[in-house]
Amino acid sequence: MTQYKNVETLRWVDAGEFSRSWLQMIDQTLLPVELKILDCRTIETVWDAIKMLRVRGAPAIGIAAAYGLCVGLQPLFVDGSEPSEADFFARLKTSHDYLAGSRPTAVNLFWALDRMFSKAESLRGSMSPSPLADALLAEAQAIHEEDRQICRAIGNHGATLVKDGDSLLTHCNAGGLATADYGTALAVFFAATEQGKKIHVFADETRPLLQGARLTSWELWQHGIDVTLICDSMAALVMRQGKVNAVFVGADRIAANGDTANKIGTYGVAVAAKAHGVPFYVAAPVSTFDLTIADGNLIPIEERDPDEIRCGFGTRTAPAEVRVYNPAFDVTPAELITGIVTEHGVISPVNRENVATIVAW
Amino acid sequence: MTQYKNVETLRWVDAGEFSRSWLQMIDQTLLPVELKILDCRTIETVWDAIKMLRVRGAPAIGIAAAYGLCVGLQPLFVDGSEPSEADFFARLKTSHDYLAGSRPTAVNLFWALDRMFSKAESLRGSMSPSPLADALLAEAQAIHEEDRQICRAIGNHGATLVKDGDSLLTHCNAGGLATADYGTALAVFFAATEQGKKIHVFADETRPLLQGARLTSWELWQHGIDVTLICDSMAALVMRQGKVNAVFVGADRIAANGDTANKIGTYGVAVAAKAHGVPFYVAAPVSTFDLTIADGNLIPIEERDPDEIRCGFGTRTAPAEVRVYNPAFDVTPAELITGIVTEHGVISPVNRENVATIVAW
Repeated sequence: MTQYKNVETLRWVDAGEFSRSWLQMIDQTLLPVELKILDCRTIETVWDAIKMLRVRGAPAIGIAAAYGLCVGLQPLFVDGSEPSEADFFARLKTSHDYLAGSRPTAVNLFWALDRMFSKAESLRGSMSPSPLADALLAEAQAIHEEDRQICRAIGNHGATLVKDGDSLLTHCNAGGLATADYGTALAVFFAATEQGKKIHVFADETRPLLQGARLTSWELWQHGIDVTLICDSMAALVMRQGKVNAVFVGADRIAANGDTANKIGTYGVAVAAKAHGVPFYVAAPVSTFDLTIADGNLIPIEERDPDEIRCGFGTRTAPAEVRVYNPAFDVTPAELITGIVTEHGVISPVNRENVATIVAW
Repeated sequence: MTQYKNVETLRWVDAGEFSRSWLQMIDQTLLPVELKILDCRTIETVWDAIKMLRVRGAPAIGIAAAYGLCVGLQPLFVDGSEPSEADFFARLKTSHDYLAGSRPTAVNLFWALDRMFSKAESLRGSMSPSPLADALLAEAQAIHEEDRQICRAIGNHGATLVKDGDSLLTHCNAGGLATADYGTALAVFFAATEQGKKIHVFADETRPLLQGARLTSWELWQHGIDVTLICDSMAALVMRQGKVNAVFVGADRIAANGDTANKIGTYGVAVAAKAHGVPFYVAAPVSTFDLTIADGNLIPIEERDPDEIRCGFGTRTAPAEVRVYNPAFDVTPAELITGIVTEHGVISPVNRENVATIVAW
């Protein structure tokens, strides 16, 4: 199979003209069986890709949404046409609101969309729509490049917590597929490996959508990192067997007190880690913090389609009539988190004061 | 779909003559999509059925193995032929050893096979092989009927621990499909319901083979019990949400100190239950105790095929090259178990002395 390092999770293909360029992304729902590159030439394609998890992971969603706004503006510029400023901003607003509805829990989605919108507002009146569109594309590319730098920084900070010979555990996929580049939790593993530390990683398969099996095990294996795939229900056992030195997971949204929303199952891993004295780290960019949310009880949890559980992978595995509870996320309270690794450094202990300091840094 | 109550998990079909009768069982690997009755007319079919989990659950495996020994003896009696006593016991021994290799962790398998063998030994010399075979069939049927009575008794003892309005959680399938009749953990739910208590049950889907999704949710739904199917990774969350009043699970093997081997994932549920102050009960017949094993560290844990995790349900969900750890069971230490519900009563607190008292009762 194609080597992952040669393929970018997200790529803006510059066709020389704004309205003819487009967004490419790996369709992550097809991995690890097929490496398909999805061409997004309409905002509907971008919306669908975010909604259907073809692109997933908080930072990657933000980058896709930023480019998605550009794709949404393109019809205004087809064949060299130039819209009015009013039409431009009206279109920008509807595109913003449309994309914001694709994944209501992903704070990076709103962060990126709002940053793009603010950029446009700041330039309003100073230039015509065509250079304004170019400036927005440059802003999306800046978000993309900044994320690369952020992932590197997270990896380097996190690697200080990893010792040579450590066996680590992760849940879901917080890797390069979830970001522009190295990922967040996986960036720690990549950076530790680059530093010459030999590590082993347990990857939880992460039901119901198996991002750990499909993506994390694939990414780590592609990078030559020693990885063992387990079911989510085995994490507590391998901890009891003394095989886990630390847990690193990503985050979808972090409240002001450090309570962390992440893929369903993260909370159970944190409970097990606490019971076995295993350090539990969250790795996430500062953009994942939502300081307007006081604590995790206020983070809305989306519920997903019951058939993700009743009909996994095209096979009926439970009676169609049986009721299902399918929360997309859970919230791990700050007291179960040993530290939060950000691009600005490690927050530890995790509390409101330390969060505020690092985020403002 | 056919109503489960009309179908028996295991049934000996009496064709009027020992060598022409046979064992029928539900092929549980096809549930809940198809209710297929498997006819076992050779010992190889019985061995395969136990190995491939077509019949599963400790008590049901024991009953299947007991009937399987009878099936193994049948070729000696074809067309009215009568073997020598030496041939009879030689065949009994090879059949015993062959079936014992089908599921090395299932103590009920050995218990049932040894009971059958001891019965034959006790009658050796007092009758010819033909009535000896009839006596062994009667012994298998006695094991079958005793299991029905045991399940009822477990259900009635366990129901005393359930209050009207309780929401309960179970892992894997310890239901009628795992036994001759009511099951063990599920017997508690059935008995509580019969007593007029209104209950709700969370059924963990139980990766990798999804016995909770395929069997437990189906069984409870067929019996009209309010059931919600969740992924294993959601159990800790619903406990945190205060939605679980108690956990009931089955057991594959229980050591003298109460340490309990059960389906992989049980230990993680017990850890989460402890962290949330939720009572955690094991429901199992006395035959599940192995007093020759001092504690859980001495219980051998079989590992199963990696492709159960890499290739779930006919779809590749992880790279073929990725290493997998796939333990069939884990061991929950006695200190995490609030009580063990047996047909003789509830062991609580769980310790060596109380186990010895109830088992000897």
